[in-house]
Amino acid sequence: MSKAVILLSGGLDSSTTLYHAAFRGHDCHCLIFDYGQRHKKEIIQAKAIAQSRGCQSVCVKISLPWKGSALLDFKMAVPQNRALDARGVPVTYVPARNIIFLSFAASYAEAIGARSIFIGANAVDYSGYPDCRPEFIRAFQAMLKRGLKSSLEGKNIKVCTPLIHLSKAQIVKLAVKLEVPLELTWSCYNAGAAPCGTCDSCRLRAQGFAQAKIVDSALKAYC
Amino acid sequence: MSKAVILLSGGLDSSTTLYHAAFRGHDCHCLIFDYGQRHKKEIIQAKAIAQSRGCQSVCVKISLPWKGSALLDFKMAVPQNRALDARGVPVTYVPARNIIFLSFAASYAEAIGARSIFIGANAVDYSGYPDCRPEFIRAFQAMLKRGLKSSLEGKNIKVCTPLIHLSKAQIVKLAVKLEVPLELTWSCYNAGAAPCGTCDSCRLRAQGFAQAKIVDSALKAYC
Repeated sequence: MSKAVILLSGGLDSSTTLYHAAFRGHDCHCLIFDYGQRHKKEIIQAKAIAQSRGCQSVCVKISLPWKGSALLDFKMAVPQNRALDARGVPVTYVPARNIIFLSFAASYAEAIGARSIFIGANAVDYSGYPDCRPEFIRAFQAMLKRGLKSSLEGKNIKVCTPLIHLSKAQIVKLAVKLEVPLELTWSCYNAGAAPCGTCDSCRLRAQGFAQAKIVDSALKAYC
Repeated sequence: MSKAVILLSGGLDSSTTLYHAAFRGHDCHCLIFDYGQRHKKEIIQAKAIAQSRGCQSVCVKISLPWKGSALLDFKMAVPQNRALDARGVPVTYVPARNIIFLSFAASYAEAIGARSIFIGANAVDYSGYPDCRPEFIRAFQAMLKRGLKSSLEGKNIKVCTPLIHLSKAQIVKLAVKLEVPLELTWSCYNAGAAPCGTCDSCRLRAQGFAQAKIVDSALKAYC
Protein backbone atom coordinates (compact mmCIF):
# COMPACT_ATOMS: atom_id res chain seq x y z
CA MET A 1 0.00 0.00 0.00
CA SER A 2 1.39 3.36 -0.95
CA LYS A 3 1.16 6.10 1.63
CA ALA A 4 -0.91 9.20 0.89
CA VAL A 5 -1.64 12.38 2.81
CA ILE A 6 -5.29 13.45 2.68
CA LEU A 7 -6.37 17.01 3.48
CA LEU A 8 -9.50 16.46 5.52
CA SER A 9 -11.83 19.25 6.62
CA GLY A 10 -14.81 17.11 7.61
CA GLY A 11 -16.95 18.37 4.70
CA LEU A 12 -18.52 16.39 1.90
CA ASP A 13 -15.73 16.91 -0.64
CA SER A 14 -12.72 16.06 1.49
CA SER A 15 -14.49 13.07 3.07
CA THR A 16 -15.33 11.71 -0.38
CA THR A 17 -11.73 12.29 -1.39
CA LEU A 18 -10.51 10.27 1.60
CA TYR A 19 -12.84 7.38 0.82
CA HIS A 20 -11.80 7.52 -2.84
CA ALA A 21 -8.08 7.39 -1.97
CA ALA A 22 -8.65 4.54 0.49
CA PHE A 23 -10.74 2.67 -2.11
CA ARG A 24 -7.85 3.06 -4.52
CA GLY A 25 -5.69 1.20 -2.00
CA HIS A 26 -3.72 4.02 -0.43
CA ASP A 27 -2.53 3.94 3.15
CA CYS A 28 -4.22 7.21 4.11
CA HIS A 29 -2.80 9.68 6.61
CA CYS A 30 -5.33 12.43 7.24
CA LEU A 31 -4.24 15.99 7.91
CA ILE A 32 -6.73 18.22 9.71
CA PHE A 33 -6.28 21.93 10.50
CA ASP A 34 -7.38 23.95 13.46
CA TYR A 35 -6.75 27.33 11.86
CA GLY A 36 -9.00 29.58 13.88
CA GLN A 37 -12.14 28.85 11.87
CA ARG A 38 -15.54 29.78 13.31
CA HIS A 39 -16.17 26.47 15.05
CA LYS A 40 -14.51 23.23 16.09
CA LYS A 41 -17.37 21.08 14.82
CA GLU A 42 -15.71 20.37 11.47
CA ILE A 43 -12.52 19.32 13.27
CA ILE A 44 -14.42 16.86 15.50
CA GLN A 45 -16.27 15.53 12.47
CA ALA A 46 -13.07 15.23 10.43
CA LYS A 47 -11.50 13.10 13.15
CA ALA A 48 -14.62 10.91 13.28
CA ILE A 49 -14.58 10.48 9.49
CA ALA A 50 -10.91 9.44 9.47
CA GLN A 51 -11.71 6.94 12.22
CA SER A 52 -14.74 5.65 10.31
CA ARG A 53 -12.39 4.60 7.49
CA GLY A 54 -9.81 3.19 9.92
CA CYS A 55 -7.26 5.90 9.07
CA GLN A 56 -4.99 7.79 11.36
CA SER A 57 -5.26 11.56 11.52
CA VAL A 58 -3.12 14.40 12.78
CA CYS A 59 -4.56 17.81 13.63
CA VAL A 60 -2.21 20.76 13.20
CA LYS A 61 -3.04 24.01 14.96
CA ILE A 62 -2.02 27.15 13.12
CA SER A 63 -2.95 30.78 13.48
CA LEU A 64 -3.42 33.46 10.87
CA PRO A 65 -3.48 36.51 13.15
CA TRP A 66 -3.97 38.86 10.20
CA LYS A 67 -7.34 37.18 9.47
CA GLY A 68 -8.63 38.80 6.25
CA SER A 69 -11.65 36.49 5.94
CA ALA A 70 -15.17 36.16 7.29
CA LEU A 71 -14.25 32.64 8.38
CA LEU A 72 -11.56 34.01 10.71
CA ASP A 73 -12.80 37.49 11.60
CA PHE A 74 -15.98 37.05 13.58
CA LYS A 75 -16.81 40.74 13.19
CA MET A 76 -17.40 40.04 9.48
CA ALA A 77 -20.66 38.39 8.48
CA VAL A 78 -20.80 35.14 6.52
CA PRO A 79 -22.98 35.92 3.45
CA GLN A 80 -26.44 34.41 3.53
CA ASN A 81 -28.36 33.26 0.45
CA ARG A 82 -25.73 34.71 -1.90
CA ALA A 83 -26.43 33.94 -5.56
CA LEU A 84 -24.38 30.81 -6.24
CA ASP A 85 -23.47 32.06 -9.70
CA ALA A 86 -22.35 35.47 -8.40
CA ARG A 87 -19.08 36.69 -9.86
CA GLY A 88 -16.05 37.52 -7.73
CA VAL A 89 -14.44 35.91 -4.72
CA PRO A 90 -16.64 36.02 -1.58
CA VAL A 91 -15.51 37.31 1.83
CA THR A 92 -15.24 33.73 3.09
CA TYR A 93 -12.04 33.41 1.03
CA VAL A 94 -9.10 32.87 3.40
CA PRO A 95 -5.87 34.36 1.97
CA ALA A 96 -3.62 31.53 0.76
CA ARG A 97 -5.51 28.85 2.71
CA ASN A 98 -5.02 25.98 0.28
CA ILE A 99 -1.45 27.11 -0.36
CA ILE A 100 -0.75 26.80 3.37
CA PHE A 101 -2.66 23.52 3.75
CA LEU A 102 -0.90 21.94 0.77
CA SER A 103 2.47 23.16 2.05
CA PHE A 104 1.96 21.35 5.35
CA ALA A 105 0.73 18.30 3.43
CA ALA A 106 3.93 18.35 1.36
CA SER A 107 6.02 18.51 4.53
CA TYR A 108 4.07 15.64 6.09
CA ALA A 109 4.23 13.57 2.90
CA GLU A 110 7.95 14.05 2.54
CA ALA A 111 8.60 13.21 6.20
CA ILE A 112 6.65 9.91 6.08
CA GLY A 113 7.64 8.95 2.55
CA ALA A 114 4.19 9.43 1.00
CA ARG A 115 4.15 10.00 -2.76
CA SER A 116 0.62 11.46 -3.04
CA ILE A 117 -1.35 14.30 -1.51
CA PHE A 118 -5.12 14.24 -1.99
CA ILE A 119 -7.21 17.40 -1.81
CA GLY A 120 -10.94 17.69 -2.46
CA ALA A 121 -10.63 20.88 -4.48
CA ASN A 122 -13.51 21.39 -6.87
CA ALA A 123 -13.80 23.99 -9.63
CA VAL A 124 -17.36 23.35 -10.82
CA ASP A 125 -19.92 23.96 -8.05
CA TYR A 126 -17.66 26.06 -5.82
CA SER A 127 -17.36 29.53 -4.37
CA GLY A 128 -14.87 30.90 -6.88
CA TYR A 129 -11.80 30.58 -4.64
CA PRO A 130 -8.70 30.88 -6.86
CA ASP A 131 -6.87 28.14 -4.95
CA CYS A 132 -9.43 25.50 -6.01
CA ARG A 133 -8.74 25.76 -9.73
CA PRO A 134 -6.79 23.26 -11.86
CA GLU A 135 -4.29 25.92 -12.95
CA PHE A 136 -3.43 26.58 -9.30
CA ILE A 137 -3.00 22.88 -8.56
CA ARG A 138 -0.73 22.48 -11.61
CA ALA A 139 1.39 25.45 -10.52
CA PHE A 140 1.61 24.12 -6.96
CA GLN A 141 2.72 20.74 -8.30
CA ALA A 142 5.41 22.40 -10.42
CA MET A 143 6.60 24.37 -7.39
CA LEU A 144 6.91 21.21 -5.27
CA LYS A 145 9.12 19.73 -7.96
CA ARG A 146 11.60 22.56 -7.36
CA GLY A 147 11.35 22.89 -3.62
CA LEU A 148 11.46 19.42 -2.11
CA LYS A 149 14.44 17.24 -1.32
CA SER A 150 12.50 14.17 -2.46
CA SER A 151 12.14 15.70 -5.93
CA LEU A 152 15.91 16.17 -6.13
CA GLU A 153 16.10 12.42 -5.46
CA GLY A 154 13.68 11.70 -8.32
CA LYS A 155 10.72 10.96 -6.04
CA ASN A 156 8.08 13.52 -6.90
CA ILE A 157 5.07 14.01 -4.66
CA LYS A 158 1.87 14.21 -6.70
CA VAL A 159 -1.09 16.43 -5.82
CA CYS A 160 -4.26 14.46 -6.63
CA THR A 161 -7.62 16.19 -7.11
CA PRO A 162 -10.12 13.46 -7.98
CA LEU A 163 -13.13 15.79 -7.62
CA ILE A 164 -11.85 18.84 -9.44
CA HIS A 165 -14.00 18.45 -12.56
CA LEU A 166 -17.08 16.91 -10.92
CA SER A 167 -20.33 18.74 -10.25
CA LYS A 168 -21.59 18.70 -6.68
CA ALA A 169 -24.30 16.22 -7.75
CA GLN A 170 -21.63 13.89 -9.13
CA ILE A 171 -19.68 14.21 -5.86
CA VAL A 172 -22.81 13.27 -3.89
CA LYS A 173 -23.32 10.19 -6.08
CA LEU A 174 -19.68 9.20 -5.72
CA ALA A 175 -19.91 9.64 -1.93
CA VAL A 176 -22.91 7.33 -1.80
CA LYS A 177 -21.16 4.75 -4.00
CA LEU A 178 -18.09 4.83 -1.77
CA GLU A 179 -20.26 4.55 1.35
CA VAL A 180 -19.02 7.80 2.86
CA PRO A 181 -20.84 8.27 6.20
CA LEU A 182 -22.63 11.42 5.05
CA GLU A 183 -24.26 11.86 8.46
CA LEU A 184 -20.80 12.53 9.90
CA THR A 185 -19.83 15.24 7.38
CA TRP A 186 -20.18 18.92 8.18
CA SER A 187 -20.04 21.55 5.44
CA CYS A 188 -21.64 24.60 7.10
CA TYR A 189 -19.47 27.69 7.71
CA ASN A 190 -21.42 28.54 10.85
CA ALA A 191 -21.41 27.01 14.31
CA GLY A 192 -25.04 26.16 14.97
CA ALA A 193 -26.34 22.85 16.31
CA ALA A 194 -27.55 22.14 12.76
CA PRO A 195 -26.30 23.43 9.37
CA CYS A 196 -27.57 27.00 8.74
CA GLY A 197 -28.81 26.21 5.24
CA THR A 198 -28.05 29.74 4.02
CA CYS A 199 -24.24 30.00 3.69
CA ASP A 200 -22.60 29.25 0.32
CA SER A 201 -21.33 25.92 1.54
CA CYS A 202 -24.75 24.72 2.79
CA ARG A 203 -26.44 25.91 -0.38
CA LEU A 204 -23.95 24.30 -2.77
CA ARG A 205 -24.33 21.07 -0.82
CA ALA A 206 -28.14 21.22 -0.85
CA GLN A 207 -28.11 21.96 -4.58
CA GLY A 208 -25.86 18.93 -5.17
CA PHE A 209 -28.10 16.58 -3.20
CA ALA A 210 -31.21 17.95 -4.91
CA GLN A 211 -29.70 17.50 -8.38
CA ALA A 212 -28.52 14.00 -7.48
CA LYS A 213 -32.01 13.23 -6.11
CA ILE A 214 -30.53 11.91 -2.90
CA VAL A 215 -31.62 12.81 0.64
CA ASP A 216 -28.82 14.35 2.71
CA SER A 217 -28.60 12.12 5.77
CA ALA A 218 -26.59 14.79 7.60
CA LEU A 219 -29.68 17.00 7.75
CA LYS A 220 -31.60 14.23 9.53
CA ALA A 221 -28.67 13.54 11.85
CA TYR A 222 -28.24 17.14 12.99
CA CYS A 223 -31.79 18.51 12.85
CA MET B 1 5.76 53.66 1.43
CA SER B 2 4.78 50.30 0.02
CA LYS B 3 4.13 47.52 2.49
CA ALA B 4 6.34 44.43 2.45
CA VAL B 5 6.37 41.23 4.47
CA ILE B 6 9.83 40.14 5.58
CA LEU B 7 10.59 36.56 6.65
CA LEU B 8 12.83 37.09 9.65
CA SER B 9 14.64 34.26 11.42
CA GLY B 10 17.10 36.36 13.41
CA GLY B 11 20.10 35.15 11.40
CA LEU B 12 22.55 37.18 9.34
CA ASP B 13 20.79 36.71 5.99
CA SER B 14 17.22 37.52 6.97
CA SER B 15 18.33 40.48 9.10
CA THR B 16 20.32 41.90 6.18
CA THR B 17 17.27 41.35 3.97
CA LEU B 18 15.09 43.32 6.40
CA TYR B 19 17.56 46.22 6.51
CA HIS B 20 17.84 46.14 2.71
CA ALA B 21 14.04 46.27 2.26
CA ALA B 22 13.71 49.09 4.80
CA PHE B 23 16.58 50.98 3.11
CA ARG B 24 14.69 50.65 -0.16
CA GLY B 25 11.79 52.46 1.47
CA HIS B 26 9.41 49.62 2.25
CA ASP B 27 7.06 49.67 5.22
CA CYS B 28 8.33 46.36 6.64
CA HIS B 29 6.13 43.86 8.47
CA CYS B 30 8.30 41.09 9.88
CA LEU B 31 7.06 37.52 10.09
CA ILE B 32 8.79 35.26 12.60
CA PHE B 33 8.11 31.54 13.12
CA ASP B 34 8.12 29.47 16.25
CA TYR B 35 8.09 26.10 14.49
CA GLY B 36 9.52 23.81 17.12
CA GLN B 37 13.14 24.59 16.32
CA ARG B 38 15.84 23.64 18.82
CA HIS B 39 15.82 26.89 20.71
CA LYS B 40 13.89 30.13 21.16
CA LYS B 41 17.01 32.27 20.99
CA GLU B 42 16.62 33.04 17.29
CA ILE B 43 13.01 34.09 17.90
CA ILE B 44 14.02 36.49 20.68
CA GLN B 45 16.79 37.88 18.49
CA ALA B 46 14.48 38.22 15.48
CA LYS B 47 12.08 40.32 17.53
CA ALA B 48 14.95 42.48 18.76
CA ILE B 49 16.22 42.98 15.21
CA ALA B 50 12.77 44.02 13.94
CA GLN B 51 12.57 46.48 16.81
CA SER B 52 16.08 47.80 16.09
CA ARG B 53 14.83 48.90 12.66
CA GLY B 54 11.57 50.27 14.07
CA CYS B 55 9.47 47.60 12.37
CA GLN B 56 6.56 45.67 13.72
CA SER B 57 6.76 41.89 13.90
CA VAL B 58 4.34 39.05 14.32
CA CYS B 59 5.40 35.62 15.55
CA VAL B 60 3.36 32.68 14.29
CA LYS B 61 3.53 29.40 16.18
CA ILE B 62 3.23 26.29 14.05
CA SER B 63 3.98 22.65 14.67
CA LEU B 64 5.31 20.02 12.33
CA PRO B 65 4.59 16.92 14.44
CA TRP B 66 6.08 14.61 11.79
CA LYS B 67 9.48 16.30 12.30
CA GLY B 68 11.81 14.74 9.68
CA SER B 69 14.74 17.04 10.46
CA ALA B 70 17.58 17.32 12.95
CA LEU B 71 16.35 20.83 13.71
CA LEU B 72 13.03 19.43 14.97
CA ASP B 73 13.88 15.93 16.17
CA PHE B 74 16.18 16.34 19.12
CA LYS B 75 17.13 12.67 18.98
CA MET B 76 18.94 13.41 15.71
CA ALA B 77 22.35 15.07 15.93
CA VAL B 78 23.14 18.35 14.18
CA PRO B 79 26.22 17.61 12.03
CA GLN B 80 29.45 19.11 13.31
CA ASN B 81 32.29 20.28 11.11
CA ARG B 82 30.67 18.89 7.96
CA ALA B 83 32.61 19.72 4.79
CA LEU B 84 30.92 22.86 3.49
CA ASP B 85 31.25 21.68 -0.09
CA ALA B 86 29.73 18.26 0.71
CA ARG B 87 27.16 17.06 -1.82
CA GLY B 88 23.60 16.23 -0.87
CA VAL B 89 21.04 17.77 1.43
CA PRO B 90 22.03 17.61 5.12
CA VAL B 91 19.79 16.26 7.92
CA THR B 92 19.11 19.82 9.07
CA TYR B 93 16.81 20.19 6.04
CA VAL B 94 13.22 20.69 7.25
CA PRO B 95 10.69 19.24 4.78
CA ALA B 96 8.99 22.09 2.92
CA ARG B 97 10.09 24.73 5.43
CA ASN B 98 10.46 27.63 3.03
CA ILE B 99 7.32 26.53 1.18
CA ILE B 100 5.37 26.78 4.45
CA PHE B 101 7.02 30.05 5.51
CA LEU B 102 6.41 31.69 2.14
CA SER B 103 2.80 30.46 2.16
CA PHE B 104 2.14 32.21 5.45
CA ALA B 105 3.94 35.29 4.13
CA ALA B 106 1.65 35.27 1.09
CA SER B 107 -1.41 35.07 3.35
CA TYR B 108 -0.12 37.91 5.52
CA ALA B 109 0.82 40.03 2.49
CA GLU B 110 -2.56 39.57 0.88
CA ALA B 111 -4.42 40.36 4.11
CA ILE B 112 -2.56 43.64 4.71
CA GLY B 113 -2.26 44.67 1.08
CA ALA B 114 1.51 44.22 0.79
CA ARG B 115 2.83 43.68 -2.72
CA SER B 116 6.24 42.25 -1.80
CA ILE B 117 7.59 39.38 0.27
CA PHE B 118 11.29 39.42 1.12
CA ILE B 119 13.19 36.24 1.96
CA GLY B 120 16.92 35.96 2.64
CA ALA B 121 17.34 32.80 0.57
CA ASN B 122 20.86 32.31 -0.69
CA ALA B 123 22.10 29.77 -3.20
CA VAL B 124 25.84 30.41 -3.09
CA ASP B 125 27.30 29.73 0.37
CA TYR B 126 24.42 27.60 1.65
CA SER B 127 23.63 24.10 2.86
CA GLY B 128 22.17 22.79 -0.38
CA TYR B 129 18.53 23.10 0.66
CA PRO B 130 16.38 22.84 -2.49
CA ASP B 131 14.00 25.56 -1.27
CA CYS B 132 16.75 28.20 -1.33
CA ARG B 133 17.39 28.00 -5.08
CA PRO B 134 16.29 30.56 -7.70
CA GLU B 135 14.32 27.90 -9.62
CA PHE B 136 12.25 27.20 -6.51
CA ILE B 137 11.57 30.90 -5.91
CA ARG B 138 10.51 31.34 -9.54
CA ALA B 139 8.14 28.37 -9.31
CA PHE B 140 6.71 29.64 -6.02
CA GLN B 141 6.12 33.04 -7.60
CA ALA B 142 4.32 31.41 -10.55
CA MET B 143 2.17 29.39 -8.14
CA LEU B 144 1.15 32.53 -6.20
CA LYS B 145 0.00 34.06 -9.47
CA ARG B 146 -2.53 31.24 -9.81
CA GLY B 147 -3.60 30.83 -6.20
CA LEU B 148 -4.22 34.28 -4.76
CA LYS B 149 -7.30 36.46 -5.02
CA SER B 150 -5.10 39.54 -5.38
CA SER B 151 -3.56 38.05 -8.53
CA LEU B 152 -7.03 37.61 -10.03
CA GLU B 153 -7.44 41.34 -9.42
CA GLY B 154 -4.19 42.10 -11.24
CA LYS B 155 -2.21 42.81 -8.07
CA ASN B 156 0.58 40.26 -8.02
CA ILE B 157 2.64 39.73 -4.89
CA LYS B 158 6.35 39.55 -5.71
CA VAL B 159 8.83 37.31 -3.90
CA CYS B 160 12.08 39.28 -3.53
CA THR B 161 15.39 37.54 -2.87
CA PRO B 162 18.03 40.28 -2.78
CA LEU B 163 20.75 37.94 -1.44
CA ILE B 164 20.19 34.91 -3.62
CA HIS B 165 23.27 35.34 -5.82
CA LEU B 166 25.60 36.86 -3.19
CA SER B 167 28.42 35.01 -1.48
CA LYS B 168 28.38 35.00 2.31
CA ALA B 169 31.28 37.47 2.26
CA GLN B 170 29.25 39.83 0.08
CA ILE B 171 26.30 39.48 2.48
CA VAL B 172 28.55 40.37 5.41
CA LYS B 173 29.80 43.47 3.58
CA LEU B 174 26.24 44.48 2.69
CA ALA B 175 25.15 43.98 6.32
CA VAL B 176 27.92 46.29 7.51
CA LYS B 177 27.03 48.88 4.88
CA LEU B 178 23.36 48.79 5.92
CA GLU B 179 24.33 49.01 9.60
CA VAL B 180 22.67 45.75 10.55
CA PRO B 181 23.22 45.23 14.29
CA LEU B 182 25.30 42.09 13.78
CA GLU B 183 25.67 41.59 17.52
CA LEU B 184 21.93 40.90 17.70
CA THR B 185 21.89 38.24 14.97
CA TRP B 186 21.93 34.53 15.78
CA SER B 187 22.78 31.96 13.11
CA CYS B 188 23.69 28.86 15.17
CA TYR B 189 21.46 25.77 14.95
CA ASN B 190 22.20 24.87 18.56
CA ALA B 191 21.00 26.33 21.82
CA GLY B 192 24.19 27.16 23.70
CA ALA B 193 24.94 30.43 25.45
CA ALA B 194 27.29 31.21 22.56
CA PRO B 195 27.29 29.98 18.91
CA CYS B 196 28.70 26.41 18.71
CA GLY B 197 31.08 27.25 15.86
CA THR B 198 30.79 23.74 14.40
CA CYS B 199 27.31 23.51 12.78
CA ASP B 200 26.93 24.32 9.07
CA SER B 201 25.34 27.64 9.83
CA CYS B 202 28.10 28.80 12.19
CA ARG B 203 30.79 27.66 9.77
CA LEU B 204 29.25 29.31 6.71
CA ARG B 205 28.93 32.51 8.72
CA ALA B 206 32.52 32.34 9.98
CA GLN B 207 33.79 31.68 6.45
CA GLY B 208 31.87 34.70 5.19
CA PHE B 209 33.29 37.02 7.84
CA ALA B 210 36.80 35.67 7.26
CA GLN B 211 36.57 36.18 3.50
CA ALA B 212 35.14 39.67 4.00
CA LYS B 213 37.97 40.40 6.47
CA ILE B 214 35.46 41.69 9.02
CA VAL B 215 35.25 40.74 12.69
CA ASP B 216 31.93 39.17 13.66
CA SER B 217 30.66 41.35 16.50
CA ALA B 218 28.14 38.64 17.50
CA LEU B 219 31.02 36.43 18.66
CA LYS B 220 32.21 39.16 21.00
CA ALA B 221 28.64 39.81 22.22
CA TYR B 222 27.88 36.20 23.08
CA CYS B 223 31.25 34.79 24.13
